[in-house]
Amino acid sequence: MKPEKGKTVVGFAGLGVMGHSMAGHIMRGGYDLLVYNRSKAKALDMLTQGAVWKDDIHSLAEKSDVVITMVGFPADVEEVYLGERGLLAGARPGTVLIDMTTSSPDLAARIAAAGAEKGVPVLDAPVSGGDRGAREGTLSIMVGGDETVFNDMMPLFSLLGKNVVFQGGPGSGQHTKMANQIAIASNMMGVCEALAYSKKAGLDPEKVLSSISGGAAGSWSLSNLAPRILAGDFAPGFFVKHFIKDMKIALDEAERMGMDAAGLKKAFEQYGKVAALGLENEGTQALYKLYGD
Amino acid sequence: MKPEKGKTVVGFAGLGVMGHSMAGHIMRGGYDLLVYNRSKAKALDMLTQGAVWKDDIHSLAEKSDVVITMVGFPADVEEVYLGERGLLAGARPGTVLIDMTTSSPDLAARIAAAGAEKGVPVLDAPVSGGDRGAREGTLSIMVGGDETVFNDMMPLFSLLGKNVVFQGGPGSGQHTKMANQIAIASNMMGVCEALAYSKKAGLDPEKVLSSISGGAAGSWSLSNLAPRILAGDFAPGFFVKHFIKDMKIALDEAERMGMDAAGLKKAFEQYGKVAALGLENEGTQALYKLYGD
Repeated sequence: MKPEKGKTVVGFAGLGVMGHSMAGHIMRGGYDLLVYNRSKAKALDMLTQGAVWKDDIHSLAEKSDVVITMVGFPADVEEVYLGERGLLAGARPGTVLIDMTTSSPDLAARIAAAGAEKGVPVLDAPVSGGDRGAREGTLSIMVGGDETVFNDMMPLFSLLGKNVVFQGGPGSGQHTKMANQIAIASNMMGVCEALAYSKKAGLDPEKVLSSISGGAAGSWSLSNLAPRILAGDFAPGFFVKHFIKDMKIALDEAERMGMDAAGLKKAFEQYGKVAALGLENEGTQALYKLYGD
Repeated sequence: MKPEKGKTVVGFAGLGVMGHSMAGHIMRGGYDLLVYNRSKAKALDMLTQGAVWKDDIHSLAEKSDVVITMVGFPADVEEVYLGERGLLAGARPGTVLIDMTTSSPDLAARIAAAGAEKGVPVLDAPVSGGDRGAREGTLSIMVGGDETVFNDMMPLFSLLGKNVVFQGGPGSGQHTKMANQIAIASNMMGVCEALAYSKKAGLDPEKVLSSISGGAAGSWSLSNLAPRILAGDFAPGFFVKHFIKDMKIALDEAERMGMDAAGLKKAFEQYGKVAALGLENEGTQALYKLYGD
């Protein structure tokens, strides 16, 4: 099935900061949009623009040709997909389900297997790029599942992201997102420790950044989060609590593979300390508070 | 004293991979060049192009208006500057000494203080950008010492680097370089663990890089070293043994400041394992071998 504007009905479940922007792109892209969210309040503005409300996941699935989900934790994903009144229970054969939540690769594979039994293809398609990428439609989307289904869904993905890559079979999108989070996790320690060291050494951290950001120490986090830290801005971009969730999934998977991810373990431990300070609703740059000021 | 082409005599000690390129830029920039190196063989090509050989550090200092050093370890810097027949013993008052070795901030401050007593200004000016930056004259140079002397020396620095930043008093250049190494150290764990995870998860690491390199996980190391790892290329850009030296200096300084640099400690520990495998003459990307393949 290939989505057709004005004909294909797309259901969207999960209208948080990310999901709300993403659902908007689908609607403005010319598709009929059904929405469901735990709190209806977050859907109201979309309903005035033509989206149609559904009271539960099951009826969202029944009425949609494609369902996209962007929920919170793996437990939510499991409930939404595999619950008694969930998506797989409601979906007709041929309906395509796409989970864009960052979740467990293992769970993604289980859901895809359950979908296959019912003739319902499921893709795992987590994203990076944050609220800004969601708003601007410039997300990076990492997709696992059936490649033909992936190709069919490109018209929808291309409304949401710029860098859309098919990574392999079911769970491969989630595994790729885990690799992304693993790379970020250790680097956050490097960024925060470099800044804290600079301050303690009596340097001007802005000048230090002008020396080091463009070279071998350079990274997205150093260029984008270090200036926020120096400005005392710890508002989330990406929540500490969600990052901890992701690192836990990655650690479990690494352990299952027999891999000793020493840096990731240390970062997970450090972020545990950040949460213990009551900072789990701050942005990931709050890691700095363990080291400085 | 401001350097003048065709008049100012510049001494250069330490003609390793970096120093050889850098001394060449000074000579081609129009300055009279005196050179000293432990092994004369590495100077021969420069002597045929007009550089003049000096048999020891002491006479190099006596005959130079500015001396630049690029040696190996802090112990070498200490010997070259503070030894009985070293630079400070040989230099006339007013001669400017510039150490571009990555070395201890504390030692840099001690040398600058000893120089001040003799009327010999000393700058610490370590670099980043590697052999390629040295060859192309595009190094990032981080300078500590007296700001007037720094400004006077800009004609020489600008032959060697593109991003030349005065960071503060004596030792500040070295501290900035330590911040640079601290940022790199933890990130190297992130890069290597992300790659190893990807392979163990059965993904195509090239595709993973195409998904994650341009986003929040992106870094110089991910873009430049991960492809070398995938190609099985562990040749040094930057030697494991030198990185270990730098991390040790940074750890000692952090400890002195009462800072618990948990990520740096873990990276130092991991690189210790790399050295224990006999890989200290490989490039820093050899860290990958702890995790994968």
